[in-house]
Amino acid sequence: MKTLDDAFKHTLKDVYYAEKALTKALPKMAAAVTDKKLKAAIEEHLEETRGQVKILEQVFKSLGEKPQGEKCDAIEGLIKESEGIVEEADGGVALNAALLAAAQAVEHYEIARYGSLREWAKVLGHEEAHELLGSILDQEKAANFKLTNLAVSSVNGAHLSRAA
Amino acid sequence: MKTLDDAFKHTLKDVYYAEKALTKALPKMAAAVTDKKLKAAIEEHLEETRGQVKILEQVFKSLGEKPQGEKCDAIEGLIKESEGIVEEADGGVALNAALLAAAQAVEHYEIARYGSLREWAKVLGHEEAHELLGSILDQEKAANFKLTNLAVSSVNGAHLSRAA
Repeated sequence: MKTLDDAFKHTLKDVYYAEKALTKALPKMAAAVTDKKLKAAIEEHLEETRGQVKILEQVFKSLGEKPQGEKCDAIEGLIKESEGIVEEADGGVALNAALLAAAQAVEHYEIARYGSLREWAKVLGHEEAHELLGSILDQEKAANFKLTNLAVSSVNGAHLSRAA
Repeated sequence: MKTLDDAFKHTLKDVYYAEKALTKALPKMAAAVTDKKLKAAIEEHLEETRGQVKILEQVFKSLGEKPQGEKCDAIEGLIKESEGIVEEADGGVALNAALLAAAQAVEHYEIARYGSLREWAKVLGHEEAHELLGSILDQEKAANFKLTNLAVSSVNGAHLSRAA
């Protein structure tokens, strides 16, 4: 990894790996939560994530590259964190709130990565990749915004009626 | 972990562990980068991080708890990612750009965590903790903003003059 283009492609492989890993992790999160709106939001984002895998494949294609993943330690850690919550939580109040927060940590990670990738694509003159990566970035920001609203309007407040 | 208060305290221990881990990881990142402004920004954030460890200790105190860390898989993964970049990068252009981006991923992770923690503290009526966690959140947002500016104004552009 020597040039900015190398860094760009390396990170692209990272997020491709990350999105594919999330298509396996999100169904487990959706199955674990008990809040219906949160479950629906995670399932909706799962569909979006599957679409993002396809968009990333278009990005690789636009660069004349074959889609390829590379183990991403950060997403492994983030997913492991959410699995730990499912194991440690005893009841819906803590589980829903903590898993929602863990999902937001994943969204923020992705916002950071796509922000850098989109900027690098622009600097490197990869116009199609710039546009495609920007479309994923917008989706991640919207997903995070939706989770914030859900936390504030419903999930965090559940402790008042259902907490021990 | 049953109640929202349990989730709050669990996550508080996570970020305490994470900030302490960062006080060890950031000096290595600062030593590795070759861009002077980036090095200065990372060193400045190291000082800020040391201060955040103290602020978190105040948060624990305000809750009548002893400061305690709990292994945080997410930060372990994020730090491992930055270490991988130092190993794989061959030259300053890719190294500076990729490490700056990795530092932003860490900032975004922290923004997500302190956003949830601050909101939970409010809902739970922990007023002092709410204020203290909000002050850290503001610092993390400012640090991320600074890194974005540095990427756009200088580090990403270095490939034009120095890339292979």
